[in-house]
Amino acid sequence: MIKFEEAKKIVLESAKPIGKEKVFLEDAFRRILAEDIIANYSIPPFDNSAMDGFAIKSEDTNKDLPVKLRIVGEESAGEIFRKKIDKGQTLRIFTGALLPAGTDSVIPQEEVEIEKEFIVIRRKVRKGENVRYAGEDIKEGEIVLEKGIQLNSTHIGLLSALGIVEIEVYIKPKVGILATGEELKDLNEPLLQGSIRNSNTYTLIAQIKSAGAIPLNYGKTGDNPNEIKNIIEENLNNCDIFLTTGGVSVGKYDYVREAVESIGAERKFWKVAQKPGMPLAFYVLKRENKLKYIFGLPGNPGAVMITFEEYVRPLIYLLSGRKNYLPQEIEAKFTHDLKKKKGRLNFIRVKIFFENGEYYISESGPQGSGFLKTLANANGIALIPEDVEYIKAGTKVKVHIVEW
Amino acid sequence: MIKFEEAKKIVLESAKPIGKEKVFLEDAFRRILAEDIIANYSIPPFDNSAMDGFAIKSEDTNKDLPVKLRIVGEESAGEIFRKKIDKGQTLRIFTGALLPAGTDSVIPQEEVEIEKEFIVIRRKVRKGENVRYAGEDIKEGEIVLEKGIQLNSTHIGLLSALGIVEIEVYIKPKVGILATGEELKDLNEPLLQGSIRNSNTYTLIAQIKSAGAIPLNYGKTGDNPNEIKNIIEENLNNCDIFLTTGGVSVGKYDYVREAVESIGAERKFWKVAQKPGMPLAFYVLKRENKLKYIFGLPGNPGAVMITFEEYVRPLIYLLSGRKNYLPQEIEAKFTHDLKKKKGRLNFIRVKIFFENGEYYISESGPQGSGFLKTLANANGIALIPEDVEYIKAGTKVKVHIVEW
Repeated sequence: MIKFEEAKKIVLESAKPIGKEKVFLEDAFRRILAEDIIANYSIPPFDNSAMDGFAIKSEDTNKDLPVKLRIVGEESAGEIFRKKIDKGQTLRIFTGALLPAGTDSVIPQEEVEIEKEFIVIRRKVRKGENVRYAGEDIKEGEIVLEKGIQLNSTHIGLLSALGIVEIEVYIKPKVGILATGEELKDLNEPLLQGSIRNSNTYTLIAQIKSAGAIPLNYGKTGDNPNEIKNIIEENLNNCDIFLTTGGVSVGKYDYVREAVESIGAERKFWKVAQKPGMPLAFYVLKRENKLKYIFGLPGNPGAVMITFEEYVRPLIYLLSGRKNYLPQEIEAKFTHDLKKKKGRLNFIRVKIFFENGEYYISESGPQGSGFLKTLANANGIALIPEDVEYIKAGTKVKVHIVEW
Repeated sequence: MIKFEEAKKIVLESAKPIGKEKVFLEDAFRRILAEDIIANYSIPPFDNSAMDGFAIKSEDTNKDLPVKLRIVGEESAGEIFRKKIDKGQTLRIFTGALLPAGTDSVIPQEEVEIEKEFIVIRRKVRKGENVRYAGEDIKEGEIVLEKGIQLNSTHIGLLSALGIVEIEVYIKPKVGILATGEELKDLNEPLLQGSIRNSNTYTLIAQIKSAGAIPLNYGKTGDNPNEIKNIIEENLNNCDIFLTTGGVSVGKYDYVREAVESIGAERKFWKVAQKPGMPLAFYVLKRENKLKYIFGLPGNPGAVMITFEEYVRPLIYLLSGRKNYLPQEIEAKFTHDLKKKKGRLNFIRVKIFFENGEYYISESGPQGSGFLKTLANANGIALIPEDVEYIKAGTKVKVHIVEW
């Protein structure tokens, strides 16, 4: 049985972005940028007015005040005043308009008096006052955004300000899902005594979406090795990652490993010293010169969701080209004691809160791997190391913030 | 000029969810739940085995050990063993299978020896060992999820485990966008001297999407009151909220207020004691018995994005039925001094970080309302009150975590 850290390393060690594609800016929100963006011009592209007011030569106010300047015209944003402004002259100007030649500052309209074709200025104006200089936000040739980031609204703003219509983003990985188990009933099937709903498929669809990948749902199958094999075999070429749930333990009806191995997948590991999720199996296989990753996830909902967050999500992120692919980690203090058995790392579902400069955590409910409500009440997963048997209240442990 | 808190109150005071719709569970991820979900059966639905092993009466181990029990059959998950198990008998059982009548515990298979049709048990087994009881996760009749939450993967899991095929969610608000200003060029237009790209439309589309609403892009128009009026008039019935950018100041070319007022909208406020975003205008109008909210946003990118986060996003959240609609607020210490003018609340774009039990913030770049890079580098907005002129390094202030 290998340890969590080693298993995670094996899952992630060979993963590379699966490819790039061009998308229009309108479709780029939340995609992962696949190219460095270099400014093809400066922003602002030209010196311009930050206010509605009057463009002047500041040196005209370096004398006995008040001074009178002659209004020689006006220019709104988007227009260009072609003549140079001379000493003693001013141009009426509006926010965003090009600073006219010969001027170096703008005095706001509410600070002057207008007397026919003149303005009266009663204070000294500094050079550059109310001017936004070309390139003061972004300089031509500057690297504005680096590949590997997830594009948010501000990045879309930057890209549009640079007039970029199309950008390269990483292709979204496709993730197949097959639930196994005779006891599973779909949402619309009658729930007989002894059977339960197939919930894993639905949580996985949502988790895959939340990771920015594309879920491909191949339904459910009973405990039948040939059927499992055929479904994986038929659909693997469409997927980058294939997830099965259930059937990976040592029981008489645990046929998933047999099925996956029969298609020639190389077993990288089976069984990890962790709880929940001990029977996790991981395989790699080459198809049409592309690597396919197959996870045999356990059957219990808690084990499925947690192994997804700790193994599958980071793998999806790496295949998607994300620079940051590991769960966000904090340190937090337990508010209560905790007992566990030695030998396996425990993933404890916890509620995180912040008080007096510390992060605290407490169990979000009973930790049996079948519990759904405990998952819904959690916003973190605490990692309690293999060799620990007892955690006293107040002990600091590592916690991963969940993104599910 | 009214204050920020008052203006925000006016925007939010009358907002109610715009409506409900039914969606299939597959389409419910990230939607806002519009009904309380009550468990129609318990989870687990029946007492079942947590292990592959043997179901026994625990009292059979209350005697001199080892004991031998006769194997009377086996039952896997999804099957039902119809006969009652008597004293001295056991049933081979698999994870998830119904606990058979007459038994109260399960001993794992690796802890027994099998001798022909008998198992040998060498330890006392407690009642309930390795049994998952019906309803220990969720009890029939229990409120499982409350309306107003945004559905994440764990909620989808709960709903599917309860066999819920369709649920009621709140309708997504539709938000129209019209950019105004002669200087604006679209991404595919040549950028002449004096003109700039229309970036506000693109950031707003992304911000609206990030708030779970539907953006409707009505393009851009020059500084022409009739055109602005006509575009709003023609499209307002399709929108719950209408956003314009630019043209709300006191300049000669600021026609948005005139246009909005000419269609009969009631002005709730214009000008707020804040920076950036001072000329913000807000209107309400009834159309086909529905309230329409119109914001005249300023023209500068920083002012647009920040007023969106502080006013428009909370309004979208309220119209979407979200229980939590205000920005997440923390307290953080400035790492540097800060000077501002009295009279207006300042929204300072900041980077937040956590160190030694404290949140710290520093300006993410120059705070001019036109700067885009400062926005991209920020993950928070610090709120510096109207009457403050000087903030010393180390001072704690309120910070909103941005969701853009």
